[in-house]
Amino acid sequence: MILEVATLSVSEGRGAEFEAAFAQASAIISSMSGYLSHELQRCIEVPSRYVLLVRWASLEDHTIGFRQSEKYGEWKRLLHHFYDPPPMVEHFEPVHGAEPRT
Amino acid sequence: MILEVATLSVSEGRGAEFEAAFAQASAIISSMSGYLSHELQRCIEVPSRYVLLVRWASLEDHTIGFRQSEKYGEWKRLLHHFYDPPPMVEHFEPVHGAEPRT
Repeated sequence: MILEVATLSVSEGRGAEFEAAFAQASAIISSMSGYLSHELQRCIEVPSRYVLLVRWASLEDHTIGFRQSEKYGEWKRLLHHFYDPPPMVEHFEPVHGAEPRT
Repeated sequence: MILEVATLSVSEGRGAEFEAAFAQASAIISSMSGYLSHELQRCIEVPSRYVLLVRWASLEDHTIGFRQSEKYGEWKRLLHHFYDPPPMVEHFEPVHGAEPRT
């Protein structure tokens, strides 16, 4: 399982509109092959910042399966005009043994 | 519930040593009041980067309860010498309605 971390900066004053568009767009990402779960969280210190965490079965489910899909165009059309600057996206994998030893 | 997102850059070549120290340090954070869960994840694109996600019952459980505790000194002693530059830490809260409408 991999974790996508997208750091999103939304243009000043457009937060509510972005959140409404995201609710609509979330149906797109949730329907993709290899999608496991997502959460959108709003920054407490800087309310125009958000983090989107998406769990995928594999890296390629995101980078190829989603980004090269037809539906990705619709996702971008719904969301990308809110971002300033463009999102920063990175992928992570769990560090095993990072839990407390019992 | 709030989400702490700490973006960590570990000095070149010290990843394995950091991960071992983190396994030890994780017992500290896990014992704090208001701690709910954590996960440490390693960046696929830049392996010296990590993200630490910690779920807390409230913001103050992290910013006051943990950071002003005696144990925070031990946490810092175990981990902070690995970071270059210092970690970036932000707090987030869930955006309700960010799940697909059913």
